[in-house]
Amino acid sequence: MSNHLYNESKKEFQLERMILFSDAVFAIAITLLVIEIKVPEIHEEISDKALSLSLVHLVPKFLGFLISFLLIGLYWTVHHRMFGYVTDYNNRLLWLNLFFLFFIVLMPFSTGFYSEYAGPDLFRKQLKVPMTFYVLNFFGAGIMNYVMWKYISNPKYKLTSPPIDPLILKQAKARSLIVPIVFLLMLPVAYLVNVIVAVYIPILIPVVMRIVTKRINKNHKR
Amino acid sequence: MSNHLYNESKKEFQLERMILFSDAVFAIAITLLVIEIKVPEIHEEISDKALSLSLVHLVPKFLGFLISFLLIGLYWTVHHRMFGYVTDYNNRLLWLNLFFLFFIVLMPFSTGFYSEYAGPDLFRKQLKVPMTFYVLNFFGAGIMNYVMWKYISNPKYKLTSPPIDPLILKQAKARSLIVPIVFLLMLPVAYLVNVIVAVYIPILIPVVMRIVTKRINKNHKR
Amino acid sequence: MSNHLYNESKKEFQLERMILFSDAVFAIAITLLVIEIKVPEIHEEISDKALSLSLVHLVPKFLGFLISFLLIGLYWTVHHRMFGYVTDYNNRLLWLNLFFLFFIVLMPFSTGFYSEYAGPDLFRKQLKVPMTFYVLNFFGAGIMNYVMWKYISNPKYKLTSPPIDPLILKQAKARSLIVPIVFLLMLPVAYLVNVIVAVYIPILIPVVMRIVTKRINKNHKR
Amino acid sequence: MSNHLYNESKKEFQLERMILFSDAVFAIAITLLVIEIKVPEIHEEISDKALSLSLVHLVPKFLGFLISFLLIGLYWTVHHRMFGYVTDYNNRLLWLNLFFLFFIVLMPFSTGFYSEYAGPDLFRKQLKVPMTFYVLNFFGAGIMNYVMWKYISNPKYKLTSPPIDPLILKQAKARSLIVPIVFLLMLPVAYLVNVIVAVYIPILIPVVMRIVTKRINKNHKR
Repeated sequence: MSNHLYNESKKEFQLERMILFSDAVFAIAITLLVIEIKVPEIHEEISDKALSLSLVHLVPKFLGFLISFLLIGLYWTVHHRMFGYVTDYNNRLLWLNLFFLFFIVLMPFSTGFYSEYAGPDLFRKQLKVPMTFYVLNFFGAGIMNYVMWKYISNPKYKLTSPPIDPLILKQAKARSLIVPIVFLLMLPVAYLVNVIVAVYIPILIPVVMRIVTKRINKNHKR
Repeated sequence: MSNHLYNESKKEFQLERMILFSDAVFAIAITLLVIEIKVPEIHEEISDKALSLSLVHLVPKFLGFLISFLLIGLYWTVHHRMFGYVTDYNNRLLWLNLFFLFFIVLMPFSTGFYSEYAGPDLFRKQLKVPMTFYVLNFFGAGIMNYVMWKYISNPKYKLTSPPIDPLILKQAKARSLIVPIVFLLMLPVAYLVNVIVAVYIPILIPVVMRIVTKRINKNHKR
Repeated sequence: MSNHLYNESKKEFQLERMILFSDAVFAIAITLLVIEIKVPEIHEEISDKALSLSLVHLVPKFLGFLISFLLIGLYWTVHHRMFGYVTDYNNRLLWLNLFFLFFIVLMPFSTGFYSEYAGPDLFRKQLKVPMTFYVLNFFGAGIMNYVMWKYISNPKYKLTSPPIDPLILKQAKARSLIVPIVFLLMLPVAYLVNVIVAVYIPILIPVVMRIVTKRINKNHKR
Repeated sequence: MSNHLYNESKKEFQLERMILFSDAVFAIAITLLVIEIKVPEIHEEISDKALSLSLVHLVPKFLGFLISFLLIGLYWTVHHRMFGYVTDYNNRLLWLNLFFLFFIVLMPFSTGFYSEYAGPDLFRKQLKVPMTFYVLNFFGAGIMNYVMWKYISNPKYKLTSPPIDPLILKQAKARSLIVPIVFLLMLPVAYLVNVIVAVYIPILIPVVMRIVTKRINKNHKR
């Protein structure tokens, strides 16, 4: 191989290494979610009835697992799409990516904490602290995601070549902001109105996304 | 590198990234299985006799570990074969793969739950709840596996080029259905007949596979 | 890319995928070793003296961790060398590799079990059960390692091209047998002589290796 | 592919395999950090007040998690930079890398131990044992890092081609020594002066780094 080609392939591998490291972190975080679901211990006589009951008590844990699995999965697909455009890296991108991964790594804890004290207790006692923690965790991941879209698309750093199509970029940035903003909305609703109402706010995400995407497309055509 | 070649290699890497992410999830799930086998705690005086006894009590755990290791290994080899045909990806394939991985990630819990309340207790008390959970988990993985074979081979999405040989595809789809169907059979047998009989049903899998493979080959030759 | 080159690169990637999956399992197993070392809980008043004492009690755990880290590391370097020769794969190789990984995955448990009941207790009470478990686990890994060297070098399957140099192969096979055989020797010594003597048997491994390597080289030169 | 090109690509893959294995270990160690932060158990009546209090008690754990995340992240970026220069490997490099990873793998334990007995207890009781353990762990990682820079840049082994620029190498080696030396400084300060003062010593790292980097640059220009 010529020296130039070799250097090109080395640079490519260095970029791939950063991406595959991120994938490993994603994979471990998404698999550790299940560790928070402990095999139920039965202290009374073991029977199918007792085990069914113990599974019913685990329902909030399963729900939390499912939702966090979907959200980490979503962030992985976004990371996958984003780095489909990236063709170079610098030291700051490595660190921005690490800060983003910081919030991914924290998710098994937030999910465990939220789903431990949600469920029946949430509905009865309307606990706000675990939800706040959970919301702030996903807010942090969302903001870092937005910062990374902004950074890689900044022509000054020449990290994407060819540059990302402006319409696609605009939508990616808008979408990456919608998730943390809608999540953050849960907090005033939980504190000022009602925790139970707050729980259902994430359903707004796809609705808001459709509206914003349409509006950006319309403005672009004009 | 020319721009076209570069894009080809980028697309290839994006596909490889999805595959290596799946491998990481498989690897973690298969390794976490062992976490459910806790080092036995001896409360009486520590002796070789007490430790042997504690190992005997762990036999159902080891069996559960072995079986789940083989089944996750089997799904990994199938995933490996399947993506040997895939040459492109789209967003829906990313998500189908994530849903498939969801059931893989859940397996350490199902295995722990099943093997905690199987063994001596299973044989004495014939518990149906942990077996149902276990069966449904593997049923889900099997169905998602079938859905993915169907999706990647659908000529509409152009994900495999050249297309998979029709005979190979037919057998892959049939095989991917046999596992979840035979597993599901365990439930009526467990509820209507006997849990102990149900435990041995998976032995049918290789038998049914041979019959179906032969019949498909015969029909193909005609 | 021409279709032929594409298929070559796909086959290469399928082989690499198997290797990287193994690496992920190795990496997780080697990292999970540390999970068995729990942060000590102090039930009396917390002081530097109490914490030092708790660390002293952890010494056998640290030793077990260190030894297993080195042994898993050794198996990784051997796996690394072995697959440096492999240029093709088949379904049976996938499964042989999975069975090899089975023993790797089991090592955090064996190590935890062995080092929990070794140390002061071992020396006082000469417990044989945890050592037997540990020995059998490493024996299994060693045998599978030997089986894989034999399989990949079998010219019938055309998995290495060019074929491995006969001298290198002979030494690799001999070395891969020495580890499990010396390990297995620990058992008769522990049961018939003394557990404490058995503990030091692995020190023989480098000695035996040197002798065998020399003898093979000598025979080859004649 | 010609045989020569094939061997080149195989050698390259063997090197990449070592790097990706290291990345997997880094990724698992950085994600396992969070496992030491257990979801708080409330023994009194569950309320937002009790949960807030339990989070306050977790603050030292979160701090420990954050600091270790940053330090493991730092070592990962250094490893990433270092292997950007490496173009060949030998068996000794595999083992040096494994010994380096040994200290990375140990970090979740050190962090858990340090942050369990730090925080309020540290400030009240000035415990030195957990800090010593933590310091020695990071000292070990730093020294191994230095040893690896020295080894890969040794022209005798021909592991980097072209060789690393002498100025860059000098700075990399100096920087890799600053971290363990400043860390080690914590010990005499903790034992002879005061633990609380020792805690803040790592803040010196960026200051010392700037001074040393400047001096090396100046000497180089002369």
